[in-house]
Amino acid sequence: MATPLSTPGPTLGVVGGGQLGRMLAEAAGPLGVELVVLDPTPDCPAAPVCRDQIVGEFDDADAVRELAERADFLTFEIELADPDLLDRVREETGVPVHPSPDTLRTIQDKLVQKDALAEVGVPVPEYRAVDDADELRDALDELGTPAMVKAREGGYDGRGNAPIESPDDAEAVLDEIGGAAMVEAFVDYERELSVIGVKGDDEVATFPAGENVHREEILRETIVPARADEAVRQRAHEVATDVLELMDGRGVYGIELFQGPDDEILVNEIAPRPHNSGHWTIEGAVASQFEQHVRAVTGRPLGSTAQRSPTVMTNLLGDVEETQPAQLRGVDEVLGTPRAGLHWYGKRDVRPLRKMGHVTLTGDDGSSGTSDEGASVDDLLARARELRDAATFVDES
Amino acid sequence: MATPLSTPGPTLGVVGGGQLGRMLAEAAGPLGVELVVLDPTPDCPAAPVCRDQIVGEFDDADAVRELAERADFLTFEIELADPDLLDRVREETGVPVHPSPDTLRTIQDKLVQKDALAEVGVPVPEYRAVDDADELRDALDELGTPAMVKAREGGYDGRGNAPIESPDDAEAVLDEIGGAAMVEAFVDYERELSVIGVKGDDEVATFPAGENVHREEILRETIVPARADEAVRQRAHEVATDVLELMDGRGVYGIELFQGPDDEILVNEIAPRPHNSGHWTIEGAVASQFEQHVRAVTGRPLGSTAQRSPTVMTNLLGDVEETQPAQLRGVDEVLGTPRAGLHWYGKRDVRPLRKMGHVTLTGDDGSSGTSDEGASVDDLLARARELRDAATFVDES
Repeated sequence: MATPLSTPGPTLGVVGGGQLGRMLAEAAGPLGVELVVLDPTPDCPAAPVCRDQIVGEFDDADAVRELAERADFLTFEIELADPDLLDRVREETGVPVHPSPDTLRTIQDKLVQKDALAEVGVPVPEYRAVDDADELRDALDELGTPAMVKAREGGYDGRGNAPIESPDDAEAVLDEIGGAAMVEAFVDYERELSVIGVKGDDEVATFPAGENVHREEILRETIVPARADEAVRQRAHEVATDVLELMDGRGVYGIELFQGPDDEILVNEIAPRPHNSGHWTIEGAVASQFEQHVRAVTGRPLGSTAQRSPTVMTNLLGDVEETQPAQLRGVDEVLGTPRAGLHWYGKRDVRPLRKMGHVTLTGDDGSSGTSDEGASVDDLLARARELRDAATFVDES
Repeated sequence: MATPLSTPGPTLGVVGGGQLGRMLAEAAGPLGVELVVLDPTPDCPAAPVCRDQIVGEFDDADAVRELAERADFLTFEIELADPDLLDRVREETGVPVHPSPDTLRTIQDKLVQKDALAEVGVPVPEYRAVDDADELRDALDELGTPAMVKAREGGYDGRGNAPIESPDDAEAVLDEIGGAAMVEAFVDYERELSVIGVKGDDEVATFPAGENVHREEILRETIVPARADEAVRQRAHEVATDVLELMDGRGVYGIELFQGPDDEILVNEIAPRPHNSGHWTIEGAVASQFEQHVRAVTGRPLGSTAQRSPTVMTNLLGDVEETQPAQLRGVDEVLGTPRAGLHWYGKRDVRPLRKMGHVTLTGDDGSSGTSDEGASVDDLLARARELRDAATFVDES
């Protein structure tokens, strides 16, 4: 492991070059790690800040092979990566892939993911596989309504999820979902939490639990520390650590949790990559989730996951009615706010609810001789929402 | 000023693509600003993390013109940039240059720089222009010995500076210096300080004063806050603010100071760009000197210069006897140390005392519910030196 650092440093090949790839590249530079990304969109978000982009589909065998040939390590920043192809390329080229394609495969199928968790006793909402409307109605008999029907594969930011209120809607909801499905009992949760975990070579670490606010099933804000009891946050940490135990391969994992009735912690979903709910770590923690992912995948020691200050992250989503060239107004208000950090993803077009960037607001750390105790996360959240709402893609002139 | 942010964002053309250009690029990405650098070394340090490099000399008119044609704003990260050429290209292309070529011109000539400071009452060590050995001997009569003879132009990291102990050495020292020279009274300083300042469109800000440790006239460590009385640090801030007043054009300025006898603050030298003694701001301040430079030059509001925690920065210098391919050992010890940040500059070859990277160590911020007051800067300095000394380019196996 005591590999010297030289120039050019190790190259990290990344399947996917969206905002996660971009922020990986921003974190890789100081560590002397070069990034090459594979993405079908020419001049993808990561392109201007990384060594090179290979333009190709995530499952294009030749393109993934080319990526491996240029890389010392392979990873992915999108679940659409093809685990079978990654397995094959790993065998052919000997280039290690982290996290392991097996873990990606397990996570891609939400039913297999839930089975894997349940099998080792990680608490999850009650769920059933449903192959047709009859099975769905039977499942609802047991789980009750409302419930959440989910496509087993391909869901993203709420796509592939459909709530069901009555057994009478079984056919319609399954039609909406399309392919293979599962159904989950509705969790009347107090709070959505998430823990960003990281597996290194022989170490594991977790960031403090954040509290997520979703609307229309898309993450709007993450608040850290979560406004939950210390006991709840501790339990979230424990459950996340159990999840990490199950994962195979180095890297960062985003673990979404419900704080259910009686403060029970249930795993909602896992992402085998840096996660939107971990963007707060760039300003709010000692080493960000992106730096941790680069360290972990390239076989270096992990950094500190300690929190530096109370932090709120808010997404900048497309607030437009239809696709158009992106022009974000209100940027100077964000940049002129002390302790507000802007992250622009470099997407040319804005679409309704598309993730275009984010704003992070940190509280006073209470250091450097100031007597100020710092803002509460409630204050930070209110201020972050004001900034976010003032930033718009709509031309109001 | 309320320019919307779009993709591609504004392009910042930078004369110079060394480590300062690299860290500018690392800071520009989140702000949606793309960097194109001009540097004579193919695949210079900034190349792998920026949009593009133009390979050319800093004073190559065609290359600087090409840079301007690709840029919305021009800046420089090296004093070897040519102010006359920048003036001409600005006139031809209309692309703004920050800081102004005039300011660069003033700073490039240490005599003109000192004259400009003295003229407005900014305290500087006593100095004289010396055109020949007779003038030098006359000056030494007034200033006493020892004194410091400096080349008026082209000095860097101690090159171009020569101490003089006796009037008898006048010829020899001037020979060593080469061209036009000046001589400065020796300041029996208590401490070397520096303040990183930034000029925005209609605002000015300074980071807290750091304490610099030099050896062989090369910066080894910066300690923040400086271990000086509050009154001294306040005086450093005031003098730096007076210096900024004098500078023309937006951007970051590194202002090196002496804390002399009786705690007098004297200006040693000014750099019209981010400065080695400001690298601590990446981890140690809310918005780094590199982010501030990008914000300032592109006409955005400045960020907060507040310090986040006690911080020590130590340079990783070439500890070799002769030039060789760079292989830094001891990296895992650095990365495995909580709150240690590594910055690798991506240079292929290591040379004696060449700046290859740096390590930043931050103290506990005292936030996030830990009761620990955090390490003192003395503790941080001792630990940072251990890490630095353990990192070596020498193959001891």
